[in-house]
Amino acid sequence: MKVDVIQKVMKINDEVAASLRDRLAAMGLASVNLLSGPGAGKTTLIETAIRALEGRVRLGVVEGDPDTALDAERIARAGAPVVQINTGGGCHLEANLVDRALGRLPLQEIDLLLIENVGNLVCPTDYDLGETMRVGVVSTAEGHDKPIKYPKLFRTVDMVILNKIDLLPYVDFDVDVFLKHVESLKPGMPVLQVSCTTGEGIATWTHWLAHLARAQTPPR
Amino acid sequence: MKVDVIQKVMKINDEVAASLRDRLAAMGLASVNLLSGPGAGKTTLIETAIRALEGRVRLGVVEGDPDTALDAERIARAGAPVVQINTGGGCHLEANLVDRALGRLPLQEIDLLLIENVGNLVCPTDYDLGETMRVGVVSTAEGHDKPIKYPKLFRTVDMVILNKIDLLPYVDFDVDVFLKHVESLKPGMPVLQVSCTTGEGIATWTHWLAHLARAQTPPR
Repeated sequence: MKVDVIQKVMKINDEVAASLRDRLAAMGLASVNLLSGPGAGKTTLIETAIRALEGRVRLGVVEGDPDTALDAERIARAGAPVVQINTGGGCHLEANLVDRALGRLPLQEIDLLLIENVGNLVCPTDYDLGETMRVGVVSTAEGHDKPIKYPKLFRTVDMVILNKIDLLPYVDFDVDVFLKHVESLKPGMPVLQVSCTTGEGIATWTHWLAHLARAQTPPR
Repeated sequence: MKVDVIQKVMKINDEVAASLRDRLAAMGLASVNLLSGPGAGKTTLIETAIRALEGRVRLGVVEGDPDTALDAERIARAGAPVVQINTGGGCHLEANLVDRALGRLPLQEIDLLLIENVGNLVCPTDYDLGETMRVGVVSTAEGHDKPIKYPKLFRTVDMVILNKIDLLPYVDFDVDVFLKHVESLKPGMPVLQVSCTTGEGIATWTHWLAHLARAQTPPR
């Protein structure tokens, strides 16, 4: 009974996501769905990209959190149009929430859409948001075992960002083991190692975003 | 429709949890439900407690993760009886899972039961596991905004552990703001500041556990 109802919810989400994907593709607008646990650094990665790409690629942002508009305020200060979604007790974004949020963004003035999901390594997995690319973020402070402990999510992403590599000297994190784990879940998965504090790897992150913004974005 | 079904699941969980609480209370066995995002350091806090309390307080552990038995292996190496629960796509433990796991622990040889929930700051909130105490863990690497972004969970805990304080010099984390946020959610909430790397605050954590193990544990 529970399974039936949840599957129905998923089916409706998939339909809304497909329609969203078609609409964004028709506008030539690519989108990135950012997934991670709480505090892995998604917002800072977005802020850093907004500032690095200023004048070249115009980013628009949808922020998802159970509560507060703290992240949207940070993004607005960094200079990008943003809409905050508060999910309350909800542990992930859904396509219909993103669909409604887009009505409040100036889509004609945006080159690339970034969607920051709720901090959660389980629930967002099954919810297609119509995104072009899905990126999973892990911070070095979380430990190298995260991908294999949460394998379903990491199998669905197109790229992994290993964030806060400036903390490597101070935490128990084996980069080689982490890379091996990621490779075991999805052979060939690209992994970017970055630090928003030192700036290491940020150029690769922003080049990747700029490339995505310029590419054709057919429905995948 | 969805709400009805989920409420029914919650009601069954509450009933199983109440029966579990009564059974543990009858044995004089207190329990702690540990909640945090992924990688906040719950397992290391448990390992540290097992080693620090060796010969004085016998801990038994239930480990919850979507996948792998990595945490149970770590706990077993630290010297405590442990059962691993794998939730697959599930984002939290439920009382019936804990109930079944307890059948595989030598409860007569345990003074205190520690339950490590799935790394998640949303889903475990509403699921009573029959625990005596609920502890929320946040790592300094996650940022001081976590409590107010995930207020529902932090309002349900009896104590907060601010973990990885050895990283404070390297991360953007304002302890005063964090403490103010926690206080705003639940006035008078105790907050332990600890580091399993330097050992700072660990004596307070293990004294708290030892006290709980020796206290009478009536159903709360």
